[in-house]
Amino acid sequence: MVDIKIVAMEKDLETQIVVGHAGFIKTVEDLYETMITSVPGIKFGIGFVEASGACLVRSEGNDEDLRKRAEINALNIGAGHTFVIMFKNAYPINVNNAIKGVPEVVSTYCSTANPIQILVVETEQGRSVVGIVDGYKPKGVEGKEEKEKRKKIVRDLGYKVQ
Amino acid sequence: MVDIKIVAMEKDLETQIVVGHAGFIKTVEDLYETMITSVPGIKFGIGFVEASGACLVRSEGNDEDLRKRAEINALNIGAGHTFVIMFKNAYPINVNNAIKGVPEVVSTYCSTANPIQILVVETEQGRSVVGIVDGYKPKGVEGKEEKEKRKKIVRDLGYKVQ
Amino acid sequence: MVDIKIVAMEKDLETQIVVGHAGFIKTVEDLYETMITSVPGIKFGIGFVEASGACLVRSEGNDEDLRKRAEINALNIGAGHTFVIMFKNAYPINVNNAIKGVPEVVSTYCSTANPIQILVVETEQGRSVVGIVDGYKPKGVEGKEEKEKRKKIVRDLGYKVQ
Amino acid sequence: MVDIKIVAMEKDLETQIVVGHAGFIKTVEDLYETMITSVPGIKFGIGFVEASGACLVRSEGNDEDLRKRAEINALNIGAGHTFVIMFKNAYPINVNNAIKGVPEVVSTYCSTANPIQILVVETEQGRSVVGIVDGYKPKGVEGKEEKEKRKKIVRDLGYKVQ
Amino acid sequence: MVDIKIVAMEKDLETQIVVGHAGFIKTVEDLYETMITSVPGIKFGIGFVEASGACLVRSEGNDEDLRKRAEINALNIGAGHTFVIMFKNAYPINVNNAIKGVPEVVSTYCSTANPIQILVVETEQGRSVVGIVDGYKPKGVEGKEEKEKRKKIVRDLGYKVQ
Amino acid sequence: MVDIKIVAMEKDLETQIVVGHAGFIKTVEDLYETMITSVPGIKFGIGFVEASGACLVRSEGNDEDLRKRAEINALNIGAGHTFVIMFKNAYPINVNNAIKGVPEVVSTYCSTANPIQILVVETEQGRSVVGIVDGYKPKGVEGKEEKEKRKKIVRDLGYKVQ
Repeated sequence: MVDIKIVAMEKDLETQIVVGHAGFIKTVEDLYETMITSVPGIKFGIGFVEASGACLVRSEGNDEDLRKRAEINALNIGAGHTFVIMFKNAYPINVNNAIKGVPEVVSTYCSTANPIQILVVETEQGRSVVGIVDGYKPKGVEGKEEKEKRKKIVRDLGYKVQ
Repeated sequence: MVDIKIVAMEKDLETQIVVGHAGFIKTVEDLYETMITSVPGIKFGIGFVEASGACLVRSEGNDEDLRKRAEINALNIGAGHTFVIMFKNAYPINVNNAIKGVPEVVSTYCSTANPIQILVVETEQGRSVVGIVDGYKPKGVEGKEEKEKRKKIVRDLGYKVQ
Repeated sequence: MVDIKIVAMEKDLETQIVVGHAGFIKTVEDLYETMITSVPGIKFGIGFVEASGACLVRSEGNDEDLRKRAEINALNIGAGHTFVIMFKNAYPINVNNAIKGVPEVVSTYCSTANPIQILVVETEQGRSVVGIVDGYKPKGVEGKEEKEKRKKIVRDLGYKVQ
Repeated sequence: MVDIKIVAMEKDLETQIVVGHAGFIKTVEDLYETMITSVPGIKFGIGFVEASGACLVRSEGNDEDLRKRAEINALNIGAGHTFVIMFKNAYPINVNNAIKGVPEVVSTYCSTANPIQILVVETEQGRSVVGIVDGYKPKGVEGKEEKEKRKKIVRDLGYKVQ
Repeated sequence: MVDIKIVAMEKDLETQIVVGHAGFIKTVEDLYETMITSVPGIKFGIGFVEASGACLVRSEGNDEDLRKRAEINALNIGAGHTFVIMFKNAYPINVNNAIKGVPEVVSTYCSTANPIQILVVETEQGRSVVGIVDGYKPKGVEGKEEKEKRKKIVRDLGYKVQ
Repeated sequence: MVDIKIVAMEKDLETQIVVGHAGFIKTVEDLYETMITSVPGIKFGIGFVEASGACLVRSEGNDEDLRKRAEINALNIGAGHTFVIMFKNAYPINVNNAIKGVPEVVSTYCSTANPIQILVVETEQGRSVVGIVDGYKPKGVEGKEEKEKRKKIVRDLGYKVQ
């Protein structure tokens, strides 16, 4: 019987996390260049699970703490070709499209400041990510008032022209 | 033991559905703008599972019925940061690339008129989409005749130059 | 109780494989054109699981052996709207972005020369891909020396300016 | 002394025109597929100035009148590798990103329903597009009232959430 | 005889400028949303030459000075469907790909902190941008030493992994 | 009176050339990585006109002859922020979309094996590319027979499914 394990990502709520699937020896360098090109002053670390040959978790970054946390999170997931990016001083909307466009990147699973649990299945060959618990369950649907409040927040933040 | 639940999407075969993963308070507005910019006369509704703070299903759309159905489907999935778009008067190929390019969008799981079942895992923290049953199982492989028929349909529909 | 099946892809280590999710009758033709436009001399086969109507595995390619292997792998997965591309004479980084940009393509799960196991769930309606085991588990994290060696390989291959 | 010629595009205000630069024998077929994949019911014609070998204006389309007008406009411009698309039943915002993403397309100069004049320079070798007069000169800058009116039009058309 | 006018953009060297071609009544709002989504803390103004109807220079921004300068620069160019973006607190590499992906955007001519002269041709109908003088002429080619220095700067800035 | 100069690119018909506009100190390195990631075995050289500071033509490549030719062509154009790529063992359709997606790249003017003349305007400040003569003028429009022959060539080359 195949079982699903829950691997909680080590992160605090001030740190953004991207988890995705990629593959090639230059993945961490290309993700490094993509991250640093996206936003001035961004701080980040990247871990990538090499899935053949030496089978090591590869890592780069411009912040030693974030690099180590991305590395350990990638190791804990342990699924071949999974990458983890942890970053600060920027938001997911600043980096998502650039990450999606990296030639090695096959897919992204999440990009968020929320607590993240990775659902992992292990076979005799190796491991696979099968899902991502990104934050919490919904408590209901927004009503008219909450809708207005949401739009107001977006406009007060300046994201839409008023 | 982690269990996988099956959540059937409420939809008829005349309505297209996109399910994906995104994240930010302006997701529903950005998806709204993307959908309405894609095809003249498109009708759609969008539901998005907010995964922190108020944890409400957020929704927008230019068709009240589709908005409500997207909202209820998103609520039924209940996985943080999942979005559901239901639309008419357009096809997936008219909107897929635009949706993939939205800065909040991390991934898309399906885009189809088929019946859709979402496979969901629930942990103590929240829920995750782990799979999509998109239509039906194959009955076999196409033969020479069926291959010719397929190409003829594509050309009769005008999608390829004859 | 929903069970997860393991479907091993039939492939040798000289052949690259892409598995993803798409949907429309012209998917195999559009993927064909995308692959042949990407790299001169590329050889490939494509299989796609039609998920409504005739429910046949559709296939195209410019190499009969790769076409048949993509077809049989797609049939073995059996999840509606899944596609499999098998190719030679090119690397994933040469084709990934082009595949991600095809209007029918919703998502890609892997793109690799590694051994691949597909995790599949079957419901009464049909099947879903829930995960991909792409190569092997990590044996640890890279040390300083291994990091230097990795960078040297990338530069010796000419991928980065020295 | 190099002189700039003005070539007015033959078009009415109900027809949209895209002029750009591309290059390869399959350009007209790829643009055809891109246009027909973008919007259901779109009508279009494409002309492309082949710049080597037979040096013929190549054309495709799903509307004979638009195909002929695109062809004659391309011939009148006469600059190698220029393409002209004329279309109805859709707007530039529905097709621009898809056109920009076609592998043969190098650049686009305009996409509009406005009257269009192409500025052309001819050398001993051939011709070059050097500019596009797209509609008319501005009469001034918008004031507060005109700004409000503009935003209202956009929202009344449904392009932005109110 | 068609004459080419030189229109110098009003800008200081601390301000970045993008000039391009687009078209639709929501262009300034969409560019606004694209700019503010790209980099936290970015300051910008956008001017766009409406080329039909009221023929007004439309403008938006989150910085009043930059909005006015973009507006006046757009008016001075006076070519239908031209847009000008002036921004601070970010670099061209942080925003270029997002701007290129806006559905209204047809082409971009420059994105730089350099002094910019726009070459403009005026016909009886209107005006066209025909060229951009972006900074200065080259003084020669880099030698071995200057090549090493260039690479060192890029690595010292952290843009490439050392 | 502003004059337009004709600058013929030094190239043979076996070499492809891309001319475009970009800008940043890492442009040549990023274009290098993009080219080498696109097609296995590609040979190329890149020249880029630095437009501020040292104002040197910067260059990279994996083929010394192509690097030098790109460098001299860039110098001859002499317009700030112009780049020239010369390559072999690949076609424009294999590299165009990747080049368009490079963060420094603002626009591309041509991508072709044809003879190329660059139209250049010089002001007191510097130079601007105003046009590209890409190959030759058209001799007429294709007839029915030539249309069939064109489609046959495309299919015989394997670019479209027959």
